[in-house]
Amino acid sequence: MKTYINPNDLEIKEICTRPTEDLSQIKSVVESIFNEVQTNGDAAVSKYTHYFDKVDVTNSRISRTEIDAALTVTSIELKTALLKAKANIEKFHSSQVSADVELETSKGVYCQQISRPIETIGIYIPGGTAPLLSTVLMLAVPAQIAGVERIVMCTPPSKSGTVDPAILFAADLCGVTEIYKVGGVQAIAAMTFGTATIPKVMKVFGPGNQYVTAAKTLAQQYGLAIDMPAGPSELLVLADETCVPEFVAADLLSQAEHGKDSQVICITCSNEITESIQKAILDQVELLPRKEIAKLALNHARFIVIDDESNQLELINTYAPEHLILAIKNPRDFISGIKNAGSVFLGNYTPESAGDYASGTNHTLPTSGYSKSYSGVNMDAFVKKITVQEINKNGLLDLGSTIEVLAEAEQLIGHKNAVTIRLKSLENES
Amino acid sequence: MKTYINPNDLEIKEICTRPTEDLSQIKSVVESIFNEVQTNGDAAVSKYTHYFDKVDVTNSRISRTEIDAALTVTSIELKTALLKAKANIEKFHSSQVSADVELETSKGVYCQQISRPIETIGIYIPGGTAPLLSTVLMLAVPAQIAGVERIVMCTPPSKSGTVDPAILFAADLCGVTEIYKVGGVQAIAAMTFGTATIPKVMKVFGPGNQYVTAAKTLAQQYGLAIDMPAGPSELLVLADETCVPEFVAADLLSQAEHGKDSQVICITCSNEITESIQKAILDQVELLPRKEIAKLALNHARFIVIDDESNQLELINTYAPEHLILAIKNPRDFISGIKNAGSVFLGNYTPESAGDYASGTNHTLPTSGYSKSYSGVNMDAFVKKITVQEINKNGLLDLGSTIEVLAEAEQLIGHKNAVTIRLKSLENES
Repeated sequence: MKTYINPNDLEIKEICTRPTEDLSQIKSVVESIFNEVQTNGDAAVSKYTHYFDKVDVTNSRISRTEIDAALTVTSIELKTALLKAKANIEKFHSSQVSADVELETSKGVYCQQISRPIETIGIYIPGGTAPLLSTVLMLAVPAQIAGVERIVMCTPPSKSGTVDPAILFAADLCGVTEIYKVGGVQAIAAMTFGTATIPKVMKVFGPGNQYVTAAKTLAQQYGLAIDMPAGPSELLVLADETCVPEFVAADLLSQAEHGKDSQVICITCSNEITESIQKAILDQVELLPRKEIAKLALNHARFIVIDDESNQLELINTYAPEHLILAIKNPRDFISGIKNAGSVFLGNYTPESAGDYASGTNHTLPTSGYSKSYSGVNMDAFVKKITVQEINKNGLLDLGSTIEVLAEAEQLIGHKNAVTIRLKSLENES
Repeated sequence: MKTYINPNDLEIKEICTRPTEDLSQIKSVVESIFNEVQTNGDAAVSKYTHYFDKVDVTNSRISRTEIDAALTVTSIELKTALLKAKANIEKFHSSQVSADVELETSKGVYCQQISRPIETIGIYIPGGTAPLLSTVLMLAVPAQIAGVERIVMCTPPSKSGTVDPAILFAADLCGVTEIYKVGGVQAIAAMTFGTATIPKVMKVFGPGNQYVTAAKTLAQQYGLAIDMPAGPSELLVLADETCVPEFVAADLLSQAEHGKDSQVICITCSNEITESIQKAILDQVELLPRKEIAKLALNHARFIVIDDESNQLELINTYAPEHLILAIKNPRDFISGIKNAGSVFLGNYTPESAGDYASGTNHTLPTSGYSKSYSGVNMDAFVKKITVQEINKNGLLDLGSTIEVLAEAEQLIGHKNAVTIRLKSLENES
């Protein structure tokens, strides 16, 4: 835990530097798996499932029977929680649906912007020690609202060839069309090219390790769209004298437990507040099952004391955090100055974990400073906006010469002719 | 000009196949220019301007004096046309600005979605035989509406070290903050890393040749966002007996004149209509200054006769054209079935060139089938959507256990604790 007092430009640069992931070493592995899946389809997928997941899966598609069985073994408590979280996510994302636009831009020229869902998407849910239920909600719920026809989900099987029942329950609840027990690079490759079993998708969403990230990057070269570039998760807390240091500590630890490369940043206005937060962290970290991971992340945590509010704001915007907690007196007054952040949490009773699971906002957010140019996943991510225009005869009589002049200036006489030939015909009509 | 009659699946696959651009050969050139610009900044930029543009530019930034001079030499006719086109583009894009969202998702849980402009963007305007004025409008107008603070434009200098005055007039008219006489890979590299003269931007927009496309792809690896992947331009016309074959021919030729790899596709319901269109093309092409280019594009143009409307629609959606003209009797009835297209033009008096220049819609559109997953450039491209949430004490009392249950299911006890510690404190309060 390093502390900076009113950092200078060089220190600000240091604070804002993210770990750079060098994907070049794993790139060749990813490329060769892609080539094999492209050539050999399901056989290559099975081979890599055997190799990486240590299990032989004969039919990777999860059957209705398996899903129905999952419904019976998921606890009522978990089902209730999933339903409540889903309701909030549904409400918030439904409210984001953008209305079609229609207007007459000039006399007789009618323009529209309409939306269409992406027809087929892929959702990748990583495996590991715990089932990432919340990511299923965060990706499938808005896809379903958008009207995506086919929501394909891939997730790695356990060593016994199963998928956590709670994942199956969540996927079924949120309208996932089909679920495949396939993980890692082979899953992304399968959704990129399609196999006899797994369909080719148009856009792939979801988190993953470095291999999955590299696979998503490579998939783009084959025409697949992806949700956003991914890096280690981040939390920046801004706290003043009205914060509760124990709450801030708990929030920073919730970030630290994600992984050893998690980014934990805390800005306060005084040394005293920083010290109380640090003390609370040291007290609380010992109680965490994932304390070893959290401690590794805390090693490179940054505590910054900045007494001036405009300098605090500047650092936040320069850092451009994925998650931003404002544990300050009047957080709403502060929002107008925020230019770059993924998701913002206001006051003492809005922990980051509320947004991770259940407030209704999406938890798929831009890391590594990408919030300077990328939005988190929202309804826009599941649709394409198409424009439509219709010009009537009077409209073309009015606008035609404008188009002719501009086309001529660009020396595109074919473009000009497409107007001229119509104007001449209208002249002959009259 | 190849004609297909009610094509079978194999032929549809052939029709929908786009030329694949193999960028691997030019990748190493692009990478080495990037490395040099990253290391040597302006010196490397000047070196490549000398090498590719055959001119020595000492100060790449266009001065206010140069811009003012441009204003005086641009013709009144062109200025008037630019102003009229700008007005339509402004109206249509302003109408797309999405309202902020704010709602209480569940008791005491308040969620918002707010928008913030990307602070600094780069616009690349290619050089070549003619000044691409319209692209300046299409990118700078929405950026200005969105509130982008810094709109950086790069465009290659002529051999005499100048930039077309009309480009300078258009850029100045649309609020471009600064203009640099730098083109090609070195321009994209300069905007990726920043030099002493040219600022680093957060997102880069604009068309270009294969080198520029490869440079934009590489820029993404350095954290830059880009507008969309680029490929050769495309037009698909659907025409029935109500079409005017001469108009359709003019539209197809306006596409063909873009470049030898332009994609020209025409679906009709009868052989007779196809033949009349083909005849009109052969008549008109000879009159085009760019007829040699147009003829090369026409060599691989595809004419398809499909008598069944649902099969026409299926082919359109499978092809997913950049531009789609519906020269049919009731084009509005057809729109509901369109799933994939960049921009759609209705009826006999709406040529593609209207949208290229002046109807108000954007002409930066997804090619190569990307309209299955990408929107054309619209107001969303210039902003980030940020979520905000605030939970009050009652809200956390109500939602807390949901978050605890889900965090525990994911074995993230730190996430759970961030709620538990607050709930305990609220218990003690009461």
